[in-house]
Amino acid sequence: MKIRVYYEDTDAGGIVYHTNYIKYCERARSEIFFSKGVNPFEDDNSGFVVRKIECDFLGTSKLGDILTIHTKTEEIKRSSLTLTQWITKDNKTIFSMKILLAYMKNAKVARIPEDIKNIIIPS
Amino acid sequence: MKIRVYYEDTDAGGIVYHTNYIKYCERARSEIFFSKGVNPFEDDNSGFVVRKIECDFLGTSKLGDILTIHTKTEEIKRSSLTLTQWITKDNKTIFSMKILLAYMKNAKVARIPEDIKNIIIPS
Amino acid sequence: MKIRVYYEDTDAGGIVYHTNYIKYCERARSEIFFSKGVNPFEDDNSGFVVRKIECDFLGTSKLGDILTIHTKTEEIKRSSLTLTQWITKDNKTIFSMKILLAYMKNAKVARIPEDIKNIIIPS
Amino acid sequence: MKIRVYYEDTDAGGIVYHTNYIKYCERARSEIFFSKGVNPFEDDNSGFVVRKIECDFLGTSKLGDILTIHTKTEEIKRSSLTLTQWITKDNKTIFSMKILLAYMKNAKVARIPEDIKNIIIPS
Repeated sequence: MKIRVYYEDTDAGGIVYHTNYIKYCERARSEIFFSKGVNPFEDDNSGFVVRKIECDFLGTSKLGDILTIHTKTEEIKRSSLTLTQWITKDNKTIFSMKILLAYMKNAKVARIPEDIKNIIIPS
Repeated sequence: MKIRVYYEDTDAGGIVYHTNYIKYCERARSEIFFSKGVNPFEDDNSGFVVRKIECDFLGTSKLGDILTIHTKTEEIKRSSLTLTQWITKDNKTIFSMKILLAYMKNAKVARIPEDIKNIIIPS
Repeated sequence: MKIRVYYEDTDAGGIVYHTNYIKYCERARSEIFFSKGVNPFEDDNSGFVVRKIECDFLGTSKLGDILTIHTKTEEIKRSSLTLTQWITKDNKTIFSMKILLAYMKNAKVARIPEDIKNIIIPS
Repeated sequence: MKIRVYYEDTDAGGIVYHTNYIKYCERARSEIFFSKGVNPFEDDNSGFVVRKIECDFLGTSKLGDILTIHTKTEEIKRSSLTLTQWITKDNKTIFSMKILLAYMKNAKVARIPEDIKNIIIPS
């Protein structure tokens, strides 16, 4: 998934505000579902929530840059999912994140449905 | 209502990104309700929605500035409300906005309840 | 220009937060320049600033929607530019905005350069 | 430092969008400097940049909630700083973050000035 850096994404330092990289990764996760015709939050009572993130800020980007967001599934458990996501600019990694997501249904941790699992692990 | 300009509010030009002034005004509108112990959107099925805004950008502000948001009720009709909101920095107006809000209930325009009207017009 | 609505764009009402439509229009304005290989703010000392906007909120959009942003030049003067921008979802207009931009150089209003004018008015 | 949750902070799930907690912590870090009359980024050529964050999302918050942001200095080295920041709602921790910041001057890692150190460690 490719993303353009717009004015709204930058801060007074002229570079992308740090939390925006985390947002870009969330866009990429959603796009995986949208591209399969699935709305990841269509049913308000179930979906993934973020439990833990570990982020390394390795480089910067500025207005007009084109960034590529990469996503790799690390582990799928019964009700949780660990991904690595990283962002490159001109093939250089400027951000990487390990993220743990929990699947929730009616505000409780729940088993990840098989059809959702199949979208996450393309086979 | 006073607001501090933080890093997240600024853009690559080093000044507050223009739509943030509109957000600050929304905070001030919400705060009017919160200060009376009313959650303006507690019931998901009713509340004000923005119909029309006219904004003049008259000055700039930067990181660390303290801004004051002012709100004046211009007109209350059966189901709509017109406000003028403006933002000052050191007593100089840097932004002004006229805003038309409609009261909605179950996705339809509805009469503004009396208790809500009383919060808007302090008597 | 087409934009996908992501989770970050929505608010507690489940729909796109109103100021985000104004941001989407800003993205579309920037993209006009980027698509010509011009960085609209490359030189920190010159560029367009927003002076005035008038917005009508005509409909709503939600997570996963694909929106199209349209831009029409209304008037170009020596140092200012008036555009109409509107957003459609399934060919229905949900937002429209008239925007007045001023061209600034070294913090002063300045004549819009000819090459910039040529990008704005495709001939 | 106390923060009110506004409409802009929430997402379609009705709760605060996850990256906003990281933004709130940034506000609290800036406020430490502002409260001493120091603008943390006054000189564009020096300041702290985020290198690494580890975040645990432990609870949720919604529109109108009042959150408290806490900051504890874990370690100050020659040119870097490790903090723990956490957010409480009604004395319950809903978010915690370990953050590593590097001090930069003219785009290079630099020694943290003594006056900055003194602001970070109140004595």
